[in-house]
Amino acid sequence: MDNTTLKNYAEFAIRKGLNLQKGQTLILSCPIETSHFARMCTEEAFKAGAKDVVVHYKDEIVSRQRLENASLETLTDIKPWVVGSRMDYVSGENTPKDACALVISAGDPEAYKGLDAEKITKSQQAMSKALKGWSDLSMANQFQWCVLSLPTAAWAKKVFPGESEEAAMEKLWNAIATATRMDTPDPVAAWGTIIEDARRRCKTLNDAKLTALHLKGENGTDLTVGLADDYVFTGGETLRSGDDLPFLANVPSEEIFTAPHKDKVDGIVKSSMPYVFNGNLIEGITIKFENGKATTATAEKGDDFLQQMMSADEGALHLGEIALVPASSPIRKAGVLFYNVLYDENAACHMALGAGYPESVIGGDAMSREQLLEKGLNDSLIHEDIMIGTPKMDIDGIMADGSTMPVFRGGEWVF
Amino acid sequence: MDNTTLKNYAEFAIRKGLNLQKGQTLILSCPIETSHFARMCTEEAFKAGAKDVVVHYKDEIVSRQRLENASLETLTDIKPWVVGSRMDYVSGENTPKDACALVISAGDPEAYKGLDAEKITKSQQAMSKALKGWSDLSMANQFQWCVLSLPTAAWAKKVFPGESEEAAMEKLWNAIATATRMDTPDPVAAWGTIIEDARRRCKTLNDAKLTALHLKGENGTDLTVGLADDYVFTGGETLRSGDDLPFLANVPSEEIFTAPHKDKVDGIVKSSMPYVFNGNLIEGITIKFENGKATTATAEKGDDFLQQMMSADEGALHLGEIALVPASSPIRKAGVLFYNVLYDENAACHMALGAGYPESVIGGDAMSREQLLEKGLNDSLIHEDIMIGTPKMDIDGIMADGSTMPVFRGGEWVF
Repeated sequence: MDNTTLKNYAEFAIRKGLNLQKGQTLILSCPIETSHFARMCTEEAFKAGAKDVVVHYKDEIVSRQRLENASLETLTDIKPWVVGSRMDYVSGENTPKDACALVISAGDPEAYKGLDAEKITKSQQAMSKALKGWSDLSMANQFQWCVLSLPTAAWAKKVFPGESEEAAMEKLWNAIATATRMDTPDPVAAWGTIIEDARRRCKTLNDAKLTALHLKGENGTDLTVGLADDYVFTGGETLRSGDDLPFLANVPSEEIFTAPHKDKVDGIVKSSMPYVFNGNLIEGITIKFENGKATTATAEKGDDFLQQMMSADEGALHLGEIALVPASSPIRKAGVLFYNVLYDENAACHMALGAGYPESVIGGDAMSREQLLEKGLNDSLIHEDIMIGTPKMDIDGIMADGSTMPVFRGGEWVF
Repeated sequence: MDNTTLKNYAEFAIRKGLNLQKGQTLILSCPIETSHFARMCTEEAFKAGAKDVVVHYKDEIVSRQRLENASLETLTDIKPWVVGSRMDYVSGENTPKDACALVISAGDPEAYKGLDAEKITKSQQAMSKALKGWSDLSMANQFQWCVLSLPTAAWAKKVFPGESEEAAMEKLWNAIATATRMDTPDPVAAWGTIIEDARRRCKTLNDAKLTALHLKGENGTDLTVGLADDYVFTGGETLRSGDDLPFLANVPSEEIFTAPHKDKVDGIVKSSMPYVFNGNLIEGITIKFENGKATTATAEKGDDFLQQMMSADEGALHLGEIALVPASSPIRKAGVLFYNVLYDENAACHMALGAGYPESVIGGDAMSREQLLEKGLNDSLIHEDIMIGTPKMDIDGIMADGSTMPVFRGGEWVF
């Protein structure tokens, strides 16, 4: 993780990840532990012609102290400035196209371990509610956004507990470099292949005019996921609403995804990897869906967090996303559990409880939430990805006439 | 600077410095390099019963990148959220008494070296203007506030350029510990002595009903400083407006101070120490005052910054504070130039160009800025302390009948 490598990564983040346009303000959110990288990204952003860069540093240790000591009333009283710190750059005299957002996801997976589940969840929900305007713009791709990761000591030690801090950081960086293709001679070209593969698979699935997917895993998962009306599979790169400016919402990205119909999911699904929710681990999840709604949900570990998460609102009981990732994904092949959803979601097929992405419906980016709901696209304060893909999972596409097409066999793409 | 010492310092900052009251929200501003201390202060604040803690991290390297690359128009366009990040806690349903503010002053003295003076100053002025509501509350002691320092690598290396980073940090901490009395067995008791001495001297000077001070230095300074009507000397501790809750606005504090009458300052004054303005050094200042107004001002080094600073507004050409510090001050005796105004202002008598403190006039904390102006208290966007005390300075108090009383002889207090 020498400076040259990091600078190349920062350049990739700004130029390819965000595709930052001249005159845009970059809103950069990151842990204070990654300030060295934030400064590199700031430099790259100005080189690319940014109008301004606004860095929001997050300190998880202070956040933990607040969660431990401040009252629920205080924690859920989100002050107007917190909303303004984002919305001031995309509203009023500015439009969403005047900004873009880079998020460095590098938190301690167990930052909030041992704390009261209700307090964490409710304060998180209050924050999500306050920032709904911002996240709606982001989910509708009204501005370019990119989430990527960088090793931090606490995170690296969790992923590689047997290693020294230095060795763990190096191992985590190597895993990140492989997953993001930063270890290849030409990362942009490598991403060209990812984008091309995703485009081909999306086209096949979109042209097939499916009504549902059927997922069958060797762990007991047997789930039929009805798709939203006018569903669209997307993946690889994301297009900004209105002008199709391409950017990479997630780095890495091995998935292609679409929206389930919020009322047409049925069966049993089991999680296949641990899941980090607000700095706490949830493992061994089993959920039963009937007519799109989760009627029972349990977890072997962290069940209280699962219950809290699913109590956010009515939409938290329905699916907003179904994403397909082959078992041969480089992230799964790395054989590492990252305890970070950006990585782990790219190691296995996953579903998200909560809000769906407007881009998952034809013309969705220009639709109101009401119009999207009519198409079957779910809405919620939450969007929580849960890994459900197994090494031998079979997936079929189901057509309106009941006929099927194989999509996955033994955990791998058929096409 | 082991953890125990730092924790004691954090405890002192919260309990004695801020005198934080149960139910108050702490607004903590600090460089990201001091995050370890911010976390300790957060812990202490909650122990003392804080309702909430809001940490605003500042990154001088990002600030420098913005100053270098963003346009003047962008830099002077202060977004509403920046104001809200402070005012949201003391306005609306909250009052100033619901909050208190801790500022950790530990910046790189030359953070903005080599950058365009006008750009730095104008962006700083725009920020001061936007935050005038906040600084007015602070200067009127409507809430408790405390400024203190902690070594950071860039600062320590500037103060001790010949040392390794580690040795420089240690030396700077030792100097800070001595100045703040943190190296004594009972710092609170040591501060009792500081406060008692200040109280005695203030009483003498307040009872004397002076009309002016006359300062004569061996470096050519010959300045008559008329005092504001109903002037009050204060020092040692500060009292919150309305209920006299004591706190320490500055740690360390060796000064007692009052307000000049903004239109009654005459003569020549020369700076006796370098002065750090917005990350740049200004040295060898000579200013001529006539009827309170600076009619000529030059600096041997950093003259462009001096001119920019004094062009902030009309009030920037008048004095708002005159502060008395003996040559035997422990901070001067340390023989170290700190390049940090919190320290250097406690090494020598100083004057401030710009706004005066309402507490420097009887009943001033409850007066409007208009009422204060009538008393002769200056107003401005700036408040910049310039060190003018010399080792052999004589200071006389002048009474209404023209008679004089000795205040300083050979740089030292007479009483």
